[in-house]
Amino acid sequence: MNVKWSGLEQNMKQSGIDTMLITDPKHVYYLTGFLSDPHERFLGAVLQTGHEPFMLVPALDEEAARAASDITDIITHQDTDNPYQILAAKVQGKIGTLGLEKENLSMARYEALLEALSFSASFDVGPWLRELRMHKSPEEVGKLRHAISLIEQVLQAALKQVKEGVSENELVAEVEYQIRKLGADGPSFDSMVLFGENAALPHGVPGKRQLRRGDLVMFDIGVYADGYASDITRTFAYGNITDEQTRIYNTVLAANEVAIAQIRPGVTFASIDKAARDLITEAGYGEYFLHRLGHGLGIDVHEFPSVHGLNELTLSAGNVFTVEPGIYVPGIAGVRIEDDVLVTESGVDVLTQFPKQLTFID
Amino acid sequence: MNVKWSGLEQNMKQSGIDTMLITDPKHVYYLTGFLSDPHERFLGAVLQTGHEPFMLVPALDEEAARAASDITDIITHQDTDNPYQILAAKVQGKIGTLGLEKENLSMARYEALLEALSFSASFDVGPWLRELRMHKSPEEVGKLRHAISLIEQVLQAALKQVKEGVSENELVAEVEYQIRKLGADGPSFDSMVLFGENAALPHGVPGKRQLRRGDLVMFDIGVYADGYASDITRTFAYGNITDEQTRIYNTVLAANEVAIAQIRPGVTFASIDKAARDLITEAGYGEYFLHRLGHGLGIDVHEFPSVHGLNELTLSAGNVFTVEPGIYVPGIAGVRIEDDVLVTESGVDVLTQFPKQLTFID
Repeated sequence: MNVKWSGLEQNMKQSGIDTMLITDPKHVYYLTGFLSDPHERFLGAVLQTGHEPFMLVPALDEEAARAASDITDIITHQDTDNPYQILAAKVQGKIGTLGLEKENLSMARYEALLEALSFSASFDVGPWLRELRMHKSPEEVGKLRHAISLIEQVLQAALKQVKEGVSENELVAEVEYQIRKLGADGPSFDSMVLFGENAALPHGVPGKRQLRRGDLVMFDIGVYADGYASDITRTFAYGNITDEQTRIYNTVLAANEVAIAQIRPGVTFASIDKAARDLITEAGYGEYFLHRLGHGLGIDVHEFPSVHGLNELTLSAGNVFTVEPGIYVPGIAGVRIEDDVLVTESGVDVLTQFPKQLTFID
Repeated sequence: MNVKWSGLEQNMKQSGIDTMLITDPKHVYYLTGFLSDPHERFLGAVLQTGHEPFMLVPALDEEAARAASDITDIITHQDTDNPYQILAAKVQGKIGTLGLEKENLSMARYEALLEALSFSASFDVGPWLRELRMHKSPEEVGKLRHAISLIEQVLQAALKQVKEGVSENELVAEVEYQIRKLGADGPSFDSMVLFGENAALPHGVPGKRQLRRGDLVMFDIGVYADGYASDITRTFAYGNITDEQTRIYNTVLAANEVAIAQIRPGVTFASIDKAARDLITEAGYGEYFLHRLGHGLGIDVHEFPSVHGLNELTLSAGNVFTVEPGIYVPGIAGVRIEDDVLVTESGVDVLTQFPKQLTFID
């Protein structure tokens, strides 16, 4: 078994867990190298202490699982099978405490597992996986850099299509065309291109709105590449903007930079959020910064840690997360500037490299 | 409250449930008109018998929720709030039995709800929602027809880019460009374009494989439009194909047609699956048809009912589902032909209209 499984097996022994079932497809990818979206079908990787791990996959994924995974013991289920019974027939011995992911496992699956496996207790192993995944290996950082490089190329290409009268939808189409053309796996979330008043909705939806001079233009885009996500936001000025819009832009930029300047091992995620929030509050826009500063980034585009004012966890080398302060004043301006950062032994490596000074793109 | 809520309130009274919490974002859309992807944030719609429904939404979605929903009582939570406590402060009286969705609700959320709301019992209301959603209203069918029309236009446009040497990725890029250009909300799942041996993996992944003469070319694509999904698969011949490939194609086509011919109110979903499977088995390819015949289609691209050999539920007017037999013989051929169908009072209305006779596209 690989080193990740070995570490988990140690955790299991310390916590008195004999059997662990991993069902989050992203955790399965992290542990086995097999990335899939099983939809509503059952996918599980199982470790029992003292045994090699095995996987239970939908029959139609068997070939792909064997090609991608370093696990050789793979069993399958058809759509007409009860996967919980197949699992029960495969596990060794009687299960005492079953390790499973309470964030990922639905109550319905929990009840089906309980019926088939009749374990006597359960234990949430999700924190172990989240903890493991928060510390990116150099190989993972390499994949993240690649995903970020791709989305920055996409943004550069898409900016060439910005012209008066173009719609948000047309720019989204261009972004996603470039994502595919560059060979990424796909967008890591719904690509966002928002103009003017739409950008002032923090989670606005692109539509038929056409670009006019004087608009702020927000791109919030990312890709998956080799199973890893990028996520970048940049806001541009199309034509002249007002003094207040400029002041809002520069406040967001300063908040982004002051937060990044705090990043080093040992400080708390809360303090990073606070640095940005205090600056925005002092500028008079505190009530318009409605969301947390950022989120972890890796196999999931939103993963641990959550970067908000109550997270007293301390940063450590290998953490990768977003720093994305924003100000959204209805009818006036919406600006967000988002970088992806890596915590290093000595401080921070800002992985996103796209310029973030106020840029006029007409 | 609208008629959907009233029906659910009746169910609640009959089952002795005083409070119902809906958390699946698609169910929330179905009931309220507000469509969102809250990611890991908490979104809930709550009905207590004798009261109007209310919604708890992330603060950054409040404006969008008020614009889209017919619910006026909307409360919000920030990322730093505990949404379960906000929910507990809002609900009226002491909860006896809480209705919730066991398929959708994670164990972690269940435990957090239990702590905040201290209900005495829980009841799975998921089947009520699935049952409601299985019967499409004329308005919903209209939205599905629109989503299907869009993806058929996309397929028509993408076929123009099929030429020797084009890669699977390039055709995926073209498909998704057309999806955006036509104004759909986006793909309803990862767009699939697969050539030759890749198409023989039932869930293959598009890559750099370039098109060669003699390849079968499979498109499995769909869009979301106004919150409703389409899903179509067509397989084409690029240049001459072998007699065995032709036989496989015509077997899949016959299986698709024989299944559709059985569709009418009162027969079982199992019998529809069996009609296709028997035909494929008799042709000698039974072991290469690895998946169920189809799945429900609506707000989710995969929803109830599941169309497989053990589903003894009977069809009724208003059901919409896919019919998608496939044969995947490694190294020889992969063919799938997928239609979206509506059960009518008198039989079936095949909503997909794209031709499905074997077509040579060189």
